[in-house]
Amino acid sequence: MSKPFLRNAWYVAAWGYEVGAELFERTIIGESILIFRKSDGSAVAMSNACPHRFAPLHLGKLENDVVECPYHGLRYDSTGHCVLNPHGNGKVPSRARTKTYPLVELHAMLWIWMGADALADPATIPDFSCQSDESFPTVAGVIEMHANYELIADNLMDLTHVEFLHAGILGSDAIKAGAHEISQSGTTLYSNRWCPDGLAPPAWNMMFNNYNKPVDHWLYMRWDAPAHMLLDVGITPTGRPREEGIWMYGTDILTPKDETSTHYFWGASRSYGHGDRQADKQWEEAITVAFGEQDKPLIEAQQRMLAMHGATDIDGVDAVLLPSDSGPTRARKILADLRKVNESAPPTPRNPSLSELVANSAGHYAGKVTPVV
Amino acid sequence: MSKPFLRNAWYVAAWGYEVGAELFERTIIGESILIFRKSDGSAVAMSNACPHRFAPLHLGKLENDVVECPYHGLRYDSTGHCVLNPHGNGKVPSRARTKTYPLVELHAMLWIWMGADALADPATIPDFSCQSDESFPTVAGVIEMHANYELIADNLMDLTHVEFLHAGILGSDAIKAGAHEISQSGTTLYSNRWCPDGLAPPAWNMMFNNYNKPVDHWLYMRWDAPAHMLLDVGITPTGRPREEGIWMYGTDILTPKDETSTHYFWGASRSYGHGDRQADKQWEEAITVAFGEQDKPLIEAQQRMLAMHGATDIDGVDAVLLPSDSGPTRARKILADLRKVNESAPPTPRNPSLSELVANSAGHYAGKVTPVV
Amino acid sequence: MSKPFLRNAWYVAAWGYEVGAELFERTIIGESILIFRKSDGSAVAMSNACPHRFAPLHLGKLENDVVECPYHGLRYDSTGHCVLNPHGNGKVPSRARTKTYPLVELHAMLWIWMGADALADPATIPDFSCQSDESFPTVAGVIEMHANYELIADNLMDLTHVEFLHAGILGSDAIKAGAHEISQSGTTLYSNRWCPDGLAPPAWNMMFNNYNKPVDHWLYMRWDAPAHMLLDVGITPTGRPREEGIWMYGTDILTPKDETSTHYFWGASRSYGHGDRQADKQWEEAITVAFGEQDKPLIEAQQRMLAMHGATDIDGVDAVLLPSDSGPTRARKILADLRKVNESAPPTPRNPSLSELVANSAGHYAGKVTPVV
Repeated sequence: MSKPFLRNAWYVAAWGYEVGAELFERTIIGESILIFRKSDGSAVAMSNACPHRFAPLHLGKLENDVVECPYHGLRYDSTGHCVLNPHGNGKVPSRARTKTYPLVELHAMLWIWMGADALADPATIPDFSCQSDESFPTVAGVIEMHANYELIADNLMDLTHVEFLHAGILGSDAIKAGAHEISQSGTTLYSNRWCPDGLAPPAWNMMFNNYNKPVDHWLYMRWDAPAHMLLDVGITPTGRPREEGIWMYGTDILTPKDETSTHYFWGASRSYGHGDRQADKQWEEAITVAFGEQDKPLIEAQQRMLAMHGATDIDGVDAVLLPSDSGPTRARKILADLRKVNESAPPTPRNPSLSELVANSAGHYAGKVTPVV
Repeated sequence: MSKPFLRNAWYVAAWGYEVGAELFERTIIGESILIFRKSDGSAVAMSNACPHRFAPLHLGKLENDVVECPYHGLRYDSTGHCVLNPHGNGKVPSRARTKTYPLVELHAMLWIWMGADALADPATIPDFSCQSDESFPTVAGVIEMHANYELIADNLMDLTHVEFLHAGILGSDAIKAGAHEISQSGTTLYSNRWCPDGLAPPAWNMMFNNYNKPVDHWLYMRWDAPAHMLLDVGITPTGRPREEGIWMYGTDILTPKDETSTHYFWGASRSYGHGDRQADKQWEEAITVAFGEQDKPLIEAQQRMLAMHGATDIDGVDAVLLPSDSGPTRARKILADLRKVNESAPPTPRNPSLSELVANSAGHYAGKVTPVV
Repeated sequence: MSKPFLRNAWYVAAWGYEVGAELFERTIIGESILIFRKSDGSAVAMSNACPHRFAPLHLGKLENDVVECPYHGLRYDSTGHCVLNPHGNGKVPSRARTKTYPLVELHAMLWIWMGADALADPATIPDFSCQSDESFPTVAGVIEMHANYELIADNLMDLTHVEFLHAGILGSDAIKAGAHEISQSGTTLYSNRWCPDGLAPPAWNMMFNNYNKPVDHWLYMRWDAPAHMLLDVGITPTGRPREEGIWMYGTDILTPKDETSTHYFWGASRSYGHGDRQADKQWEEAITVAFGEQDKPLIEAQQRMLAMHGATDIDGVDAVLLPSDSGPTRARKILADLRKVNESAPPTPRNPSLSELVANSAGHYAGKVTPVV
């Protein structure tokens, strides 16, 4: 692989709800990771390979916070140390430990640090607090895409594709005519669209009770390395404050499985419809169609096309860039810079808290796209 | 790949009937090609990769001779130039064009030139006019074989296999006893069998109304590089002119998809049974059995066997040749020579027109195999 | 492949019962081998690639001890010489022969020698005579495992896994508490467990008419290179001679298909229940569960885990060894040594005949594990 993955970075390993009473496995940047919850409910992560014979531990048993290897019964505690060798004199070799990884449960997600333990600082986890904020009913899921994570980030960082790939659902003339501004703060990138006074995209219009009248539409995307995106997107009657409309915080977090496969964690935390199962279902269906049936096959076909050109990523070919690629291009640039220094310098998001996001959003009523910083 | 494909050569991209009102894709010598018909009915070919993000254009839309990329809506005209960038100021970068390929519709087929445009001369397309000659009812199709195209050409250029692989259908004792002659003219090769005064192969006998009496049987194969074959094959009562029997011109054109996959275009243009749907069906079934169920699995197994010997083609192993391999060996030799000079010298078929073919075929009544030149 | 297969060694190509009146193919250490029986019942082995066009001969016909190639009808006798070229003047090139391999039918199995003919000595075939000894009713089979053969041998040479992977079937507390001794004689390795005076493993207990009382349990494993194992395993009432209990000779012979696939030949020759179809079925089911549903998925998952660590075998990673790995480790050492000298020195098993095995087994009643040499 020519472009190594960032190691000193937080990756989403799983939604918190995915890890229950059973051993859980997920492959992250090419490493098979075992995750489980201790009896106190906290989750831990370690290499899934038993250091003895490299059997996958997730096929074993969990009992009293201790994992038993399915093959020869060696047991490991939650710090990865072998605590039982059931054979012979029972001596445990000092090297019999499996590597653990810092794991933090935050914003309804399990964040894993794949790099040097000493550099793991939970304060550098981007803010996705909307996902655990009861004011915002949330639906969520994970999709496996057979594509490099940067190709998927390109898709999300250039939302001009919505009026084509998602025409009839998420696209609108107002988006095409809207203003777009890119800004960067530290290693955090913002790609903001402000699309005032037009008809809402069909899916939004339907969710706004078939409003059918002009609205202001905003799409404010925040990106943090390696590929953690939050989209503040919504509509409100033209010229009216956000609170008179509806909006959602859309999570798009990409965790590479390997060079050409990605775990796509999506979430939709909406501003309305508490306890409304119908609204839950509408968002689940909209995202299943848009991400699963429109983005996924297209990006996977793009990946195969690149393979025919001898490349695994768009950087491997001589692509023609457009001004609308400024978002993806800037994100790739930040990533490329981080690759050079990542042994010492993790990404440091400058993302604001959710309350700041809402407070700042008033700026757009002046007809100006104010980055949500 | 050790043996490069000929670039300066015409390949069959599709049967004309395969390309209708929709965008059509086919991978040819490792390149994904988009083909579509303009409103005037003429067909064009271009690289299927959008130069912007390498999305496959064939998943987009065709309207007014213009292709819209499915991803971000860039539009390309039939000359491959981007004619619309729907985003921002709408400026189109000068490099925003997709490579086009010379494409000619001839003999019911779409022929594509994969090399330098300046060398593309439609006059060097071999004569398969029987396919568009109304005197010869034609059935046709395309089979994907998971084998190198030269292995399939070997099969066709040495028809001694028919009495074994196609025993009970296309083989006969007369073929075994027949005379065989190889000749070459320019880069065109002829491999002709004259098998007089014997019982016809079962399939031929059946199609000749269960004639059950001795016939003269001829199999005249013409080969042009890279792998365009036409077989003039038929039976007639012993000693009688061709016109008292039945025959067909059999198309066997091999277009490499990649090193180990091939698009096999087959056709059967017969001398009899105009409008006879039963005869159409007989030929379709005979070819489905012979090519699809007998040749295909055998050649694919041969390909796997070569892989176990570390080779992708028979040239990679130390095979024992027989005199009956003269046809395949000569064809491989012409191809090897062309590979050396192909940057400047395309194959130049010396194939005769269909009328010449028929006129010359009288020669075999003297008991001598006259090459059909 | 970094670790070459031993060439100068006997491999099991098939159970005798697998090769009947038809041509039979099996891929062994990466080579496709054709096996068939002559009319006198003796079996022969040769390269499955026709030297002419490398078509697979096993798809052809067998008649009068002669194989006809499915492609062009060349015929080969049982010495691999081409005896018929049905084409042209019928001349047979002197090089038209397919390589034959020494093949010996012994102990109900077909043993193939993959190395230099001159070194093939049937006397060096390990003793598996229990399989053809009518005193021992035998069930047998072959399983394809998608794993390197040494990983499977590791499994068999360290039976401490039975109480974990096969808990509830073949494991017991007595095995955990038992004595274990490794010994080597020439290139033959013994890994013996003596587990006196405990409850039998569930499967054994059931087969011993639900005895439910303490037994002596022994597991004596014999290994010969490349991976030929025989397990003398059984139970008898505590302190009583073997003849008052039940036992079986378990065959575990691993023939590499290629680097990551293995033909696993298993057999169970038991000391009791002549003509007892119920006992046959019990062993078939126990082995189907234990090997097919427990060992196979675990070892295949181990193989995939090693692949994620960039290795195809455990030697490619820095594994933590335990004292209980002495059996696998020693077997790997013998194999590694043989790899260095194998051009001149085949493995020479020192395995005793079956009668010696039984005679020596009395040793364990002294509470001491006597290697069965």
